[in-house]
Amino acid sequence: MKASQLFTKTQKEAPADEVSKNAQLLIRAGYVHKEMAGVYTFLPLGLKVLENINQVIREEMNAIGGQEMKLTALQDAEIWKATDRWDDEKVDVWFKTKLKNDTELGLAPTHEEPLVRAVKPYVNSYKDLPFLAYQIQTKFRNEVRAKSGVMRGREFLMKDLYSFARTEAEHEELYEKIKQAYFKVYTRLGIGDQTFITFASGGMFSKYSHEFQTVCDAGEDIIYLDRKQKIAVNEEVLDDEVLKSLNIKREDLEEVKAAEVGNIFTLKDKYSKPLGLTFVDENDKDQNVLMGCYGIGPSRLVGVITELLGDEKGLVWPVNIAPYKVYLAVLGQDEAVVKAANDLYEDLQTSGISVLYDDRDVRPGEKFADADLLGMPYRIVVSNKTLEQGKIEVKGRTASETDLITTEDFKKLLQDSAV
Amino acid sequence: MKASQLFTKTQKEAPADEVSKNAQLLIRAGYVHKEMAGVYTFLPLGLKVLENINQVIREEMNAIGGQEMKLTALQDAEIWKATDRWDDEKVDVWFKTKLKNDTELGLAPTHEEPLVRAVKPYVNSYKDLPFLAYQIQTKFRNEVRAKSGVMRGREFLMKDLYSFARTEAEHEELYEKIKQAYFKVYTRLGIGDQTFITFASGGMFSKYSHEFQTVCDAGEDIIYLDRKQKIAVNEEVLDDEVLKSLNIKREDLEEVKAAEVGNIFTLKDKYSKPLGLTFVDENDKDQNVLMGCYGIGPSRLVGVITELLGDEKGLVWPVNIAPYKVYLAVLGQDEAVVKAANDLYEDLQTSGISVLYDDRDVRPGEKFADADLLGMPYRIVVSNKTLEQGKIEVKGRTASETDLITTEDFKKLLQDSAV
Repeated sequence: MKASQLFTKTQKEAPADEVSKNAQLLIRAGYVHKEMAGVYTFLPLGLKVLENINQVIREEMNAIGGQEMKLTALQDAEIWKATDRWDDEKVDVWFKTKLKNDTELGLAPTHEEPLVRAVKPYVNSYKDLPFLAYQIQTKFRNEVRAKSGVMRGREFLMKDLYSFARTEAEHEELYEKIKQAYFKVYTRLGIGDQTFITFASGGMFSKYSHEFQTVCDAGEDIIYLDRKQKIAVNEEVLDDEVLKSLNIKREDLEEVKAAEVGNIFTLKDKYSKPLGLTFVDENDKDQNVLMGCYGIGPSRLVGVITELLGDEKGLVWPVNIAPYKVYLAVLGQDEAVVKAANDLYEDLQTSGISVLYDDRDVRPGEKFADADLLGMPYRIVVSNKTLEQGKIEVKGRTASETDLITTEDFKKLLQDSAV
Repeated sequence: MKASQLFTKTQKEAPADEVSKNAQLLIRAGYVHKEMAGVYTFLPLGLKVLENINQVIREEMNAIGGQEMKLTALQDAEIWKATDRWDDEKVDVWFKTKLKNDTELGLAPTHEEPLVRAVKPYVNSYKDLPFLAYQIQTKFRNEVRAKSGVMRGREFLMKDLYSFARTEAEHEELYEKIKQAYFKVYTRLGIGDQTFITFASGGMFSKYSHEFQTVCDAGEDIIYLDRKQKIAVNEEVLDDEVLKSLNIKREDLEEVKAAEVGNIFTLKDKYSKPLGLTFVDENDKDQNVLMGCYGIGPSRLVGVITELLGDEKGLVWPVNIAPYKVYLAVLGQDEAVVKAANDLYEDLQTSGISVLYDDRDVRPGEKFADADLLGMPYRIVVSNKTLEQGKIEVKGRTASETDLITTEDFKKLLQDSAV
């Protein structure tokens, strides 16, 4: 993509009413547009990050046998009444609306109920189980306040996977497999080092749930982290009994702020029972299906990664989710230099390396500032100076020094850094 | 994908309350689940078709320089008041909802207003134009009736592209380029032969708009088609003046039912003027940006293609959008036959050919019926008989005869049929 063609541009100032670091940087860089508090449009560069995150998640869910589907936003009240989650007193984040004939509808804040109803026609016998179904879909939550940028939205994207098992042992096996897939997701997203599995309260149906928490100043949670063992405990369940069961010593714990980037739950028959999702087992007996649910918020991750990695100069994208791998800046308008930059742009793209090519006729300082703000992993400069040496100038986004290397060496570097 | 793993299954009967052919077939085949009238969940096979359609559209929009973004469902009343489209009397398909503080919000039935506001910070000078922005996003329309299955939804997917130009000449050039891209889309979707550009009323701001209409019994429109010239006129604008301007003779026209699968509009300054989307031209003068909008409904296309191509046995998918290219049925459970089918499954996938592998232990008749209902372009049978001959049995979905050919010849056949 040529920067001269990209319709968004960088801005010096963030909007005055935007208090979160992630939204300030993402808006200044032209990645998102704020429609209202907690509701953000994803502009071309922002959508690329979001889709790259979705693709990593999708690949890991498919790798363990997840089957992707897509439920709807509009919700039929009846199924939510069956689980007693329709009343605004019970679920206080509903957006509700109405058909022309005054039938009340909801906008899905989560999707357990419609999911169970959609799969029900296909679950009859023990032979129809187990399976994993998931979607990457918009959720709507009527939050009273929304001041955390894209980290906590009133409209946001969620990957929610559901497991359907016959026995507790089968459920545990699926749960463990999905947990391992989650670790892979965070590693590929570039935040594996700072993301820890965290014991949290499990609600009514299991003793604990597992959160995945990324250590981060903007986080809304406090966790107690055992860095050596790489596990943490959410403050809401921290007591001696829990520590003992996890084999953690209190003196090894560090109190840190963290942002929840995933949450996995054992549901048992919480939804299958009221909604009648049963199967006939090997002994011809009706049994409730045992479920689990497993969430990751891709749009929230855009915010968390911005908060965690962004610096005073701007955004910093891990190589797997950057909108483009390379920010290519041509300095000056000399014919030979422009031709060399054009050729390099074509060459890198032919090699499968995505490039945002700053072909604009603006000062070098402006190009460097934009390269930093936009946050591509590598900045390449082509100028009279680099041309004389038959090399290109390469700088990692967070590196302080530049390197003069050949194009071939750069391609090799990028290959080696792939996760 | 192994059929034994796919959680959906085929059903003999469609739900009694479902009157449209497309929804009946799609539900029986396990492609969609009906949440309520006009609101459908896309199950794994249905989502694959939808995403394949999205990808064809995306590639053609990107090829002409379209920049993808994603606006939101929740809508701020203020911008819609500026264009006088907030009032339910003016736009009668709004779904409305409320924040906790009683602020009224809407669910986007279309996106001109928020799109104009989102791009406005980036349009200042003539140097910032022209450009094309688009999204593939859910629309919500509070239709009184919704009986056409996925062809007319209360919640449905739309690709909407918007052009932003400086002059009428520049707008016309973009409009023509996008029109040509639309023809490519329908050809690649497998309905190019039956889809005709159709002159329709243009509303207040241009004499005509162009619809793309697919000739189809389930269509809601009547068009008058000149098959030789491959153009049509919507009945709403059919008069002598229009025919003369299009150089069409009345006696060459055929009256047919058709389904609208695209619509492109010249908007002039309809939205840019009230929303203040202006630019400073070469002479330092403020000018309104000239816009066009260009829609295609991917979920509607799933329905139209089902109506047009589906037959009494089931779905029929064009090769470019089928969930899988091949339905592979193994007959019997003989070890050698199962091994040959397993090997073929691996071999085809390694060659980049997607396969739904019916590995279930059920009667051949059931497999053949499912193959027809599910509608993959090619059915392959592996049995003792085919094994003896060292070949595979191949049948196109709508062919009446089978062919015994080698795997290599089948791969070549598929390569040659790529559009």
